[in-house]
Amino acid sequence: MSFKIAPVEHLKDFCKEAFIKMGWEEGEALLASEVLVSADLRGIDSHGVARLDGYHRLWAKGRINSKAKPKVIRESASTATIDGDAGIGLVVAPFAMDIAIKKAKEAGTGWVTVKNSNHFGIAGHHAMMASKEKLIGMAMTNASPLVSPTFSTDRMLGTNPIAVAIPAKSYPDFVGDFATTTAANGKLEILQRKSEEAPLGWVQDKEGNPSRDPNEVKAGGALLPLGGDREHGSHKGFILGSWVDIFSGVLSQANFGPWVPPFVSFLDPPAKPVGEGIGHFLGAMDINAFQERDEFLENMDKWIKAFKEAKPIHEDQKVVIPGEPELEFENERLENGIPILDKVMVNLMLLKDELGIKREIF
Amino acid sequence: MSFKIAPVEHLKDFCKEAFIKMGWEEGEALLASEVLVSADLRGIDSHGVARLDGYHRLWAKGRINSKAKPKVIRESASTATIDGDAGIGLVVAPFAMDIAIKKAKEAGTGWVTVKNSNHFGIAGHHAMMASKEKLIGMAMTNASPLVSPTFSTDRMLGTNPIAVAIPAKSYPDFVGDFATTTAANGKLEILQRKSEEAPLGWVQDKEGNPSRDPNEVKAGGALLPLGGDREHGSHKGFILGSWVDIFSGVLSQANFGPWVPPFVSFLDPPAKPVGEGIGHFLGAMDINAFQERDEFLENMDKWIKAFKEAKPIHEDQKVVIPGEPELEFENERLENGIPILDKVMVNLMLLKDELGIKREIF
Repeated sequence: MSFKIAPVEHLKDFCKEAFIKMGWEEGEALLASEVLVSADLRGIDSHGVARLDGYHRLWAKGRINSKAKPKVIRESASTATIDGDAGIGLVVAPFAMDIAIKKAKEAGTGWVTVKNSNHFGIAGHHAMMASKEKLIGMAMTNASPLVSPTFSTDRMLGTNPIAVAIPAKSYPDFVGDFATTTAANGKLEILQRKSEEAPLGWVQDKEGNPSRDPNEVKAGGALLPLGGDREHGSHKGFILGSWVDIFSGVLSQANFGPWVPPFVSFLDPPAKPVGEGIGHFLGAMDINAFQERDEFLENMDKWIKAFKEAKPIHEDQKVVIPGEPELEFENERLENGIPILDKVMVNLMLLKDELGIKREIF
Repeated sequence: MSFKIAPVEHLKDFCKEAFIKMGWEEGEALLASEVLVSADLRGIDSHGVARLDGYHRLWAKGRINSKAKPKVIRESASTATIDGDAGIGLVVAPFAMDIAIKKAKEAGTGWVTVKNSNHFGIAGHHAMMASKEKLIGMAMTNASPLVSPTFSTDRMLGTNPIAVAIPAKSYPDFVGDFATTTAANGKLEILQRKSEEAPLGWVQDKEGNPSRDPNEVKAGGALLPLGGDREHGSHKGFILGSWVDIFSGVLSQANFGPWVPPFVSFLDPPAKPVGEGIGHFLGAMDINAFQERDEFLENMDKWIKAFKEAKPIHEDQKVVIPGEPELEFENERLENGIPILDKVMVNLMLLKDELGIKREIF
C-alpha cells in the first residue's frame, strides 16, 4: 500500500478550506476539520480525511446542511434533546457535548440525545471532550444498517459505536471506543485491500452462512454483532447495538434500526423515514458529584497500574489499557505527520479541483 | 438432572423466613426474597434460591450485615453515592434504584453509585424497577475476579453484568441483561453437571491457553471477556467489564478489579482492600425529559415489531427481543412453579435445619 506523509496542520487547513468552500462558517469548518483529523491522528484512518469525500458527496446531494443551526428543543436539569438541523455530526456532536458538560457541572450529570444529524467521526473524540476537563464522558451514535441481529439475514443495525472516556491522575485517560460488532467495517476494508480472508465471526453471507469473504457486506451479506454467533455471545453484541440505536435514535426521534439513512450518497435514504437524520447520545458525569475527584483520580491510577502489571500470557504481550494505542499513534503522528494512502490522496486531489481549494497538503 | 417443582409463593416465604432468621427486618426480608426468586422466575436459576446458602455462609462469617442501614453519603440533583453498610445487594440495590428513579423524576435522570454492598442478584430486576414505571433503567455491578483481560493470565475482573430496561407501549419491556464475558459462570456450571465441553472462547487455562474444559476456572484458569480472543473482539469485552468495574467500584469507593472480595465464603477477601465491599451503579432516565413519552413508547413498538419481523436465517428461528425469553419463563413458572434441582434442595433443607425455618417448600 503506497502512501505519502502529510503534515498534520496542512491536512487540517485543507479540510477546513474544503468545509468553508461548502458553506460552513470558519469556526465550524475549523472544528469539523479538527474532529476529522483527530481520527487520523489516533490511527483510526477509516474515520478521518478518507471520509472528507463522502461528506462532500452527501453535501452535494443536499443531505448535509452546511448552514445548519443545531438547537435545543427540550431540556431538563440533567438532559437535553437537540435538533441537528441536518448538520454535520462533526459539528453537531461537539455542540451537544458542550451542553452535556455544562449540565454535568450544574446537575451532576448531563445527557443529550440528538436527532437530525449526520455521521460524527470517531465517538472517542466527543467522549474525550469531557475527560479532558476531568469529567467522565460517553458518546454513542447509530449508523447505516450493515449488521444483522443474531438469527437473521436482514441488516437492521449500524456498527453503532460506544465510547467511554475516564480521566486518571498521572496516567492518560482510559478511552474505550468500539463498534458493537465483532469488527468494524474499516477492518474489512483493510482485508479487502490486502486480498486477505476475514476470521469467522466477522461477517455472514446474504443467506446468513458464516463467511470469510471481506467483500460479503457489499454482496448483500452483513457484519455480525460482537460475539459473532449465538454460542459466543452475539446476542450480547445485539443488545449493545440495540441499546445504542434506542438511546441515539428512538429517544431523539431520529431514524432508527433499518430506517437509518446510508452514509454513502449513491444509496437513497428510506422512502418512509421514521424520524429525522441519524441520532447520537452523549453524556458527561461530574466526578465531584459522586466523590472527591482527586481520590477518584488516584484510584484510577491504581486501577490502571494494576491492569498494566497483570501477568501476560506471552513475554512479548501486555494488557492494553483502552486508549493507550491510540495515544501512541497520536504522539507519533503529531511529530511525524499522517500517512495518506495514494487512493485517499487521489480523492482529496479531485476534491481540491472540484471545490477550488488553494491549500496544498504537502 | 432430577428436580421437584416448588410453588412460587412457598419458595418466597421460605426465603423470607430464612432472611428473618438471620436478622433482617420483615420488609427487607420480603424484598430480598422477591429479588432472589425473580431470578428463578426469569429462568436465571444460577442467581436465584440456589444462592440462598451462599448468602447465609457470608452472613455467618460476618461479611453480610443483616442490620445494615444503607445511606446516602453524597448527592447532587441527578446523582447520589450510597454506603451500603455491608448490607445485602438484594436490598441495597433496590434502595439505590428508588433514589435513581426519584432523581430522574425531578432532574430528568438519576445515577447512583453504591459501595460497601454485596451481590445484588440479577441486574435485570433492578433495571426493570424503572421500566415498570415507564422510565429507562440501567444496572451494573462488579463481582469477584474470575475474568482475565485480553493477553493476561491474571483474574482481574468479575463477570460484571450490565442490564438495560426500556419500556414499550404494547410490547413487553426491552430488557437486556448480560455478563460482559462470552458466557456467564452459570453456563459453565451447567456444562460441568452434564460433563460436556465448552466452546472455545469461553475459558482459558491457567497458562492462558484456549480451553474447552468447563472446570478450568476452578483450576486457576479464567473466564474470557465477550469476544473470547483479540481477533474476535475480546478487547471490547474487556472495555465493557472495565467500564462496569469503574462505574460500580472506583466511582463509589468500593473495591475494584482484583481487589473485589469473593462471593464464596471459603475464600477470604483481599488482605489490603482498596475500598469497601463490592460496588453497583444504577440509573434511571425519565423519557419525558427527552420527548413526549407516548411517542417514544409508540416508536419502541415500531422498533420491536421491525426486529421481530426481520427475516430469519432458518425457518425455525426468529430474532429474539432481549427480555422475551425471560418473560416466557416468568409467565410459565408463575403458573406452574419453579423447578428446584435436588442438589439445591439438599442445601435448602440443610439451611432449614440450621436456621430452624418452619415453612415447607412443598
